[in-house]
Amino acid sequence: MTGVARAGTGTNQEAVRRHNLGTVLRYVHRTGSTSRASLTSQMALNRSTIGGLAATLEDLGLVRRSTPVASRAGAGRPSAGLEVVSRRAYVLAIDVGVDRVVVGRVGLGCDVEVRARVNLPPEPAPEHVAETIVGLVAAVRADASPESTLVGVGISVPGVVREADGMVVFAPNLGWHEVPFAALVRERLGLTVDHVIANDADLGARAEHVRGAGVAVDHLVYVSGDVGVGAGVITDGRPLGGAGGFAGEIGHMSFAPNGLRCHCGSRGCWETQVGAVAIARAIGAPADVVPTLDAVLDDFDGPPESLHEIAHHVGHGLANVINMLNPQVVVLGGYLASLHRLVEPEILAAVRSGVMSAAGGQVLVTRPTLGADTVLVGAAEAAFESLLADPAGVLSR
Amino acid sequence: MTGVARAGTGTNQEAVRRHNLGTVLRYVHRTGSTSRASLTSQMALNRSTIGGLAATLEDLGLVRRSTPVASRAGAGRPSAGLEVVSRRAYVLAIDVGVDRVVVGRVGLGCDVEVRARVNLPPEPAPEHVAETIVGLVAAVRADASPESTLVGVGISVPGVVREADGMVVFAPNLGWHEVPFAALVRERLGLTVDHVIANDADLGARAEHVRGAGVAVDHLVYVSGDVGVGAGVITDGRPLGGAGGFAGEIGHMSFAPNGLRCHCGSRGCWETQVGAVAIARAIGAPADVVPTLDAVLDDFDGPPESLHEIAHHVGHGLANVINMLNPQVVVLGGYLASLHRLVEPEILAAVRSGVMSAAGGQVLVTRPTLGADTVLVGAAEAAFESLLADPAGVLSR
Ligand SMILES: [Zn+2]
Ligand SMILES: [Zn+2]
Repeated sequence: MTGVARAGTGTNQEAVRRHNLGTVLRYVHRTGSTSRASLTSQMALNRSTIGGLAATLEDLGLVRRSTPVASRAGAGRPSAGLEVVSRRAYVLAIDVGVDRVVVGRVGLGCDVEVRARVNLPPEPAPEHVAETIVGLVAAVRADASPESTLVGVGISVPGVVREADGMVVFAPNLGWHEVPFAALVRERLGLTVDHVIANDADLGARAEHVRGAGVAVDHLVYVSGDVGVGAGVITDGRPLGGAGGFAGEIGHMSFAPNGLRCHCGSRGCWETQVGAVAIARAIGAPADVVPTLDAVLDDFDGPPESLHEIAHHVGHGLANVINMLNPQVVVLGGYLASLHRLVEPEILAAVRSGVMSAAGGQVLVTRPTLGADTVLVGAAEAAFESLLADPAGVLSR
Repeated sequence: MTGVARAGTGTNQEAVRRHNLGTVLRYVHRTGSTSRASLTSQMALNRSTIGGLAATLEDLGLVRRSTPVASRAGAGRPSAGLEVVSRRAYVLAIDVGVDRVVVGRVGLGCDVEVRARVNLPPEPAPEHVAETIVGLVAAVRADASPESTLVGVGISVPGVVREADGMVVFAPNLGWHEVPFAALVRERLGLTVDHVIANDADLGARAEHVRGAGVAVDHLVYVSGDVGVGAGVITDGRPLGGAGGFAGEIGHMSFAPNGLRCHCGSRGCWETQVGAVAIARAIGAPADVVPTLDAVLDDFDGPPESLHEIAHHVGHGLANVINMLNPQVVVLGGYLASLHRLVEPEILAAVRSGVMSAAGGQVLVTRPTLGADTVLVGAAEAAFESLLADPAGVLSR
């Protein structure tokens, strides 16, 4: 476990204690339950310090004692168990998709307590989406427990996001350019907690890394398929942002110099080959199924022949990503998960024929463990960040 | 400045002091000279602690006092200056290229004191290269100052390297598979210092980041051109290795499904479009100039028309890299630097037409500041690492 600070002298002792309190809470939040003995060994702090931190978190109502847990060796006294109190604090997780918005009320430990969903018209106005969110938020908060404290709002958008000021720089499939969306939502909700916003693929990568297919893995790529194609990358256990936070635009890797014109201005982008529009065309589906392509694909029993070429393009692009980033796990999200279910062998064959053996020998290409909740859970994780950094401070606000 | 540790209790106080000694030396090694005042503010340690560390480094002969440096504000007493004593310690930097080996004796502060070079036959046997290195090492050590201590050996290889055990997994242009090259060199040299080995592009990225075009930049891509094409990536100030250290195989991004067969087994790899073989063919040069393509390109006054298509392919591939990684600086090394000098506008035009505006708007595409020494300096930086981690310990061995 990282992030443990040592008590220094005088003035910063309280800061260190707040920080360590957050580190203990983060661990319980991730694992759901643990034991004091496990915390003691993971954090390399002594028993009494851990005991004091756990007692403070208990006093704050964020954790409670649970059935004692036997030590791994089976010897010695069982260690006091600790489990997260999911209902003590919650966040609002907002997943803006191309055709719909989902808002979830998510309790500590990332328990998705309730979801509400509304479809969106094509190229919806940002103000319309923000108003829609206000209604969904009211719906999911309606039956929140009175002792549960709202501690953050996390927003996912399928586009290029500048996290620092909450600006959606470019969301082509929503038709948005330079939209200060976090501010729009904050104003309308009138909530005083932190609002964070990020790219959907980056949040998907975060969720699958913390509690999905990439747990215990330091190098992961999450490929989002929501009309367009993007990627969230975890490398050395940390998100790969790039200079402006814009890394991961793999949908616009261009593989066919004389290929189709892409909305980004280039030709032959991967998105023109494996985007939802291309897949709908390949299976002869009308254009209006594009936003719900995942459901259409899920209805197939066997894959139509026409998907084999798409599968080849998917594998070819993944091979390029793998050659560049050398991940352990690639998670295919959105409609790409549905596609993977249908044509996994064809995708894998194309990956294998394109990867350098050293980089790609061991890579696992898979679907999200968290299923359709992946991006929502990622938004919730981002929204919990301020509580996990300073539990006592956030709850006393 | 990062890496400062605080003195703890009892037993680890000495370890903290050794670590901080290395942090001060690293700073002087990077900057060449500095002042105590600058160190005090950068390291957030008090004046007397910095004074003590500087005095110890002086006693070890690694730094010396220099002309006092006026404070930035111009007010107050000038602060005592410190400068690196380049001749006190040196490393052997070994740059194995496809057609030649260069060995440098490099003093502290990365002063390349002397270089020796020998050409290699095509697909040289690893043992032959190791023997060649022994001779070059003897040559560059011949006139080393007797008070200069050898503290490390750093080896660069144009191929996929597993740094942990010094294995060259795959170096296609040398014809090497699974060659334990660091061990081969270590046995023959019979030197007891640390030997480190890494990929040439990774070392080029490191050198340009520490003291070249990427100083003060956290996101940099170094593209190596030495017959083949590879990349070293710095992201958030740290090398991007991937799960096995194999990230950066951008030469084998495949852009033309029906393109030329590449030695990696795929078709249409970037290397088949912009590798030295492709460029030699484009300019009608005989195959035997391939290893020295940089010199051939340097002899052109104006670019032949035939290089325009190559320039387009270079820019197209760079756009894909930029879309994925969002770097601030892209450095083109080896023969790609020579190509860039000839067709920079054409390369930039192709980059611009392929990048997403958010990711690529501000990227600088340039040549190495360190010129032909880039990879050699990267190997030297890697070799100095053990001294910089524990100066007193390494010198007392
Ligand atoms: Zn595009
Ligand atoms: Zn190839």
